[in-house]
Amino acid sequence: MNDIDIESLKGIANQLRIHSIASTTTAGSGHPTSCCSAADVVAALFFAHMRYDPKNPHYHNNDRFILSKGHAAPLLYAAWAETGLFPAEDLLKLRQLGSDLEGHPTPRLPFVDVATGSLGQGLSVGVGMALCARLDNLDYRTYVLLGDGECAEGAMWEAASLAGIHQLNNLIAVVDVNRLGQSQPTPFGHDTAVYRKRFQAFGWRTEEIDGHDIEEILEVLAAVGLGSQPLVILAKTLKGSGISFIQDKEGWHGKPLSKEEAAKAIAELQPTAKSGVGRPLPPPSQLPAPKNDPPASYPPLSYKLGDMVATREAYGNALLRIGEVDLRIVAFDGDTKNSTYSEKFAKKFPSRFTESFIAEQNMVGMAAGFGARRKVPFASSFACFFGRATDQLRVAGISRANLKLAGSHVGVSIGEDGPSQMGLEDLAIMRAIAGSAVLYPSDAVCAEKLVEQMASTKGICFLRTSRPKTPVIYNNDEQFPIGGAKILRQSASDKVTVVAAGATLFEALKAADALKTEGIGITIIDAYSVKPLAKDLLLASAQKTNNLVVTVEDHYPEGGLGDAVAGELSADGVKVHKLAVYELPHSGKPEELLAKYGIDANAIVAKVKALL
Amino acid sequence: MNDIDIESLKGIANQLRIHSIASTTTAGSGHPTSCCSAADVVAALFFAHMRYDPKNPHYHNNDRFILSKGHAAPLLYAAWAETGLFPAEDLLKLRQLGSDLEGHPTPRLPFVDVATGSLGQGLSVGVGMALCARLDNLDYRTYVLLGDGECAEGAMWEAASLAGIHQLNNLIAVVDVNRLGQSQPTPFGHDTAVYRKRFQAFGWRTEEIDGHDIEEILEVLAAVGLGSQPLVILAKTLKGSGISFIQDKEGWHGKPLSKEEAAKAIAELQPTAKSGVGRPLPPPSQLPAPKNDPPASYPPLSYKLGDMVATREAYGNALLRIGEVDLRIVAFDGDTKNSTYSEKFAKKFPSRFTESFIAEQNMVGMAAGFGARRKVPFASSFACFFGRATDQLRVAGISRANLKLAGSHVGVSIGEDGPSQMGLEDLAIMRAIAGSAVLYPSDAVCAEKLVEQMASTKGICFLRTSRPKTPVIYNNDEQFPIGGAKILRQSASDKVTVVAAGATLFEALKAADALKTEGIGITIIDAYSVKPLAKDLLLASAQKTNNLVVTVEDHYPEGGLGDAVAGELSADGVKVHKLAVYELPHSGKPEELLAKYGIDANAIVAKVKALL
Repeated sequence: MNDIDIESLKGIANQLRIHSIASTTTAGSGHPTSCCSAADVVAALFFAHMRYDPKNPHYHNNDRFILSKGHAAPLLYAAWAETGLFPAEDLLKLRQLGSDLEGHPTPRLPFVDVATGSLGQGLSVGVGMALCARLDNLDYRTYVLLGDGECAEGAMWEAASLAGIHQLNNLIAVVDVNRLGQSQPTPFGHDTAVYRKRFQAFGWRTEEIDGHDIEEILEVLAAVGLGSQPLVILAKTLKGSGISFIQDKEGWHGKPLSKEEAAKAIAELQPTAKSGVGRPLPPPSQLPAPKNDPPASYPPLSYKLGDMVATREAYGNALLRIGEVDLRIVAFDGDTKNSTYSEKFAKKFPSRFTESFIAEQNMVGMAAGFGARRKVPFASSFACFFGRATDQLRVAGISRANLKLAGSHVGVSIGEDGPSQMGLEDLAIMRAIAGSAVLYPSDAVCAEKLVEQMASTKGICFLRTSRPKTPVIYNNDEQFPIGGAKILRQSASDKVTVVAAGATLFEALKAADALKTEGIGITIIDAYSVKPLAKDLLLASAQKTNNLVVTVEDHYPEGGLGDAVAGELSADGVKVHKLAVYELPHSGKPEELLAKYGIDANAIVAKVKALL
Repeated sequence: MNDIDIESLKGIANQLRIHSIASTTTAGSGHPTSCCSAADVVAALFFAHMRYDPKNPHYHNNDRFILSKGHAAPLLYAAWAETGLFPAEDLLKLRQLGSDLEGHPTPRLPFVDVATGSLGQGLSVGVGMALCARLDNLDYRTYVLLGDGECAEGAMWEAASLAGIHQLNNLIAVVDVNRLGQSQPTPFGHDTAVYRKRFQAFGWRTEEIDGHDIEEILEVLAAVGLGSQPLVILAKTLKGSGISFIQDKEGWHGKPLSKEEAAKAIAELQPTAKSGVGRPLPPPSQLPAPKNDPPASYPPLSYKLGDMVATREAYGNALLRIGEVDLRIVAFDGDTKNSTYSEKFAKKFPSRFTESFIAEQNMVGMAAGFGARRKVPFASSFACFFGRATDQLRVAGISRANLKLAGSHVGVSIGEDGPSQMGLEDLAIMRAIAGSAVLYPSDAVCAEKLVEQMASTKGICFLRTSRPKTPVIYNNDEQFPIGGAKILRQSASDKVTVVAAGATLFEALKAADALKTEGIGITIIDAYSVKPLAKDLLLASAQKTNNLVVTVEDHYPEGGLGDAVAGELSADGVKVHKLAVYELPHSGKPEELLAKYGIDANAIVAKVKALL
């Protein structure tokens, strides 16, 4: 790198600053000072260091760049405009409804792999991508730009720990240590030694630099990939760097400059600014693309009606069965693999399984990273512990990520372990994730077929599995499309439609038998697809039973199956009565708890009779 | 401590092991090996070191003990039985429906401050209690027993960081490094140096000991409180310690011993076991109890009708106003205090405010800790970022914690920042927390009165606040009980009841004005209490409008206001039509987004007309 190059990079950095200032001032909102602090690092990465094809952001061996501090979006957009991907004039459409240059980056843009903007999530995605590069025998590197403020997020350290354990020397984090948070200075200011000690303790190689010294930046970047550790570059910077009257001052987070201030700032920067378009960039190496095509079909099932198999075990069986032929499938667990049965896959395909330890946020973030690299990631844990990763799931919804989750041990039917281990709110959480599918099988055949559906359907899918063994009630060739439901009992004289799923479906069947002896018929529907719900089928059944529906679920009454059915059918005049777990449950035997909380066969019988 | 005492403590430790083995074998489930590894530490803490009144677990200056590794519950129960609090025979009722000795600890028991069992949460609660001790001028110490597996959870490091920043030398963590997780060994095994480096980097004093050597344990405990740092004791232990044929073996997590194995194990331990009852314990110092009584009344409000005030700002005003007279109130924020307006309280009462930085899990855990010490904790952030702490909130629900949350910046009405900053699933999440109240004010008066209600109502309450300024529509003396609703427009000829809250309430009012010009009357209800919902009032209104209801909410359609109303009213034959944000939203101007996603006045008008 000769002197001219250094000057050019300084010029590009200032051009990125100008774009960031101009676009946020035009928009009337945004975070220009958070862009300016990282401008030199981004200039060096995008215009002198990273190996990628700027005309084809999706090329499989491009280096990846994740802007974990997503509020610096204008800087990212400016960098790609300066590579020539789109006209720089478009930058002034920032934050407008008609432009995909949104307030924070989303994958509506071809150069964004995952949405960011909720802090502390980018490093997990980066760990996933770095692991995926190894699996795919590709030599691309993954760069994650972090803010110093987000280093307070625990998810960061979950990711840092696993990166250290796996010695991911193809992962590079840069912390933009600009010392100023949103509402006050960070606790450690410019003392990069604090961050150095932490990252070192978590197994990283560290470099401390002046984040505005292009030569220093390039020097440490030249040593990327050396050694066996992930690398973190701790870049001491000034928030608002380059704007003499603002830099390093408090009170400038998330504020655009006024038109006058912007003009003054741009006048300061303009003399040394330089456009980056046309510079030769280091190309990625040409390595074969990984095979990420779906298989033509999956091997058949071989259950017998009446076999006693927990749906969590069927999940493990399915992952193993379809994993044999679907090489896109990778799996993750948070030290529960002997309970969720993902260990079947882990033992057979160790290179495609990542033990994530007890760190669900990072597990979900990593899985999203694999999904962004065209794998089909399945992550499993107890359903309740996915609550830990709710925000990662929310952001995955914004990313329209391809991400599959299996949450086991749901409801009071787990029994003695007590409420801390019971998923009783997971349907509510998962239904509220943008674009999600929420699936809840009752038997092993349904569970396995739903895993096939999950693998072949793009998007976020959650499978809710149960702890107790339940009988196989479906034939091996039964189909379970997402958005469907099954009518298990129906006759012309039925008085009520009972909608159940999972453990309560078997209670409903028992209730039907008991009611039949008294001459009362009920329709029973297996609502294995809670979202999307089989509205038309449910409505048609309800209308045949005088618009009377009883839902019964091993879940709290808020946001679960009952609310889903009521929310869809009440507009058509259907009367939905909910049976659910209305109290904070206690430890006890599963059957005791189903009875105590009013979701067993007796409770269904009583409810049906009360409605007649 | 003389030799006889050491032998006694060894004997007590073995007695605790015997109880743990016997109770789990009788229950047929549980985690005896996770109890045995920590038995010596617990014996030393409970019978030679901690200062507490065993007959009065609630005494205000007792040392606190949090079993973060909650699956070792039988060990905790055994310790308290051995102090004489309840008969040891009761231990054999472990995990039965009729006993509060549940699978994991809950505050149904007088000696449990907070529920545990979801790993990685106890240290945050401990940080809260240690900070609260300082605030209350009490010298009790807080001890947190952690598993090594849970050190993978990011929340642990959020807590560790803040404890280091605050130099909490009244906080002592003990890590039971038994090297074996649930499904495989932990990544670091018995290498306590890894944990030492991490805790040191996070500002802690560290001690590494043999966790089965009572003398070594007592030696490091003797130095508790020295220096200015929190202390972590890294205790190298064996899982199943004391059971010769099981200890340090894989495959024994969460498994009770068979009757034969238990008999054999107890026979090994019995000769050296010794009951602890009757030992003199170090008493707590007698210091005055903090004044935690509610005030007789709160100062009045002074808004004018039509004043433009965002509900988030009203939250800040309320916290300041009632905080003046209600000394129980403490507050927390995650570096958003200038947006949530909690900075008003922070500036006036700095000693009662804890800046939690960008670490929402720890913020909520700390707040729960203060709540368990009889404070009234208010934590604020953007509503979407509370999703980060979903599992802490779930567990707070199990604790029946006294915990108040204010989530700002909800829905598409925040505008340009885009979906990553929009709370669009918070109602679904918060409704699903056991025992929660979910409140959603539209104007400043309602917001302030709801904050009063939150302070004076025990339990978990969530206040959903909005970013834009909205007009004051209520008089200062209006009352807003939790569980209520307000009818804003109603006439005998109304055709439809429109239920709204927050930003959409003003859209509904505009819609009513527009419809009125066409001679169409609609009833408008402000559903400021989403949970509990004012079912009777809503039902009565719906019945007056031919059972036709339209809900309109700035939230996804799943689990929010619409589902809540449908879930409550559909059983009575009410037809509920939902307007909500059915798509993943984009950045844009607030009014553009309300229109695009069909929740503005025009959308309401169109929906009402379509129903007639």
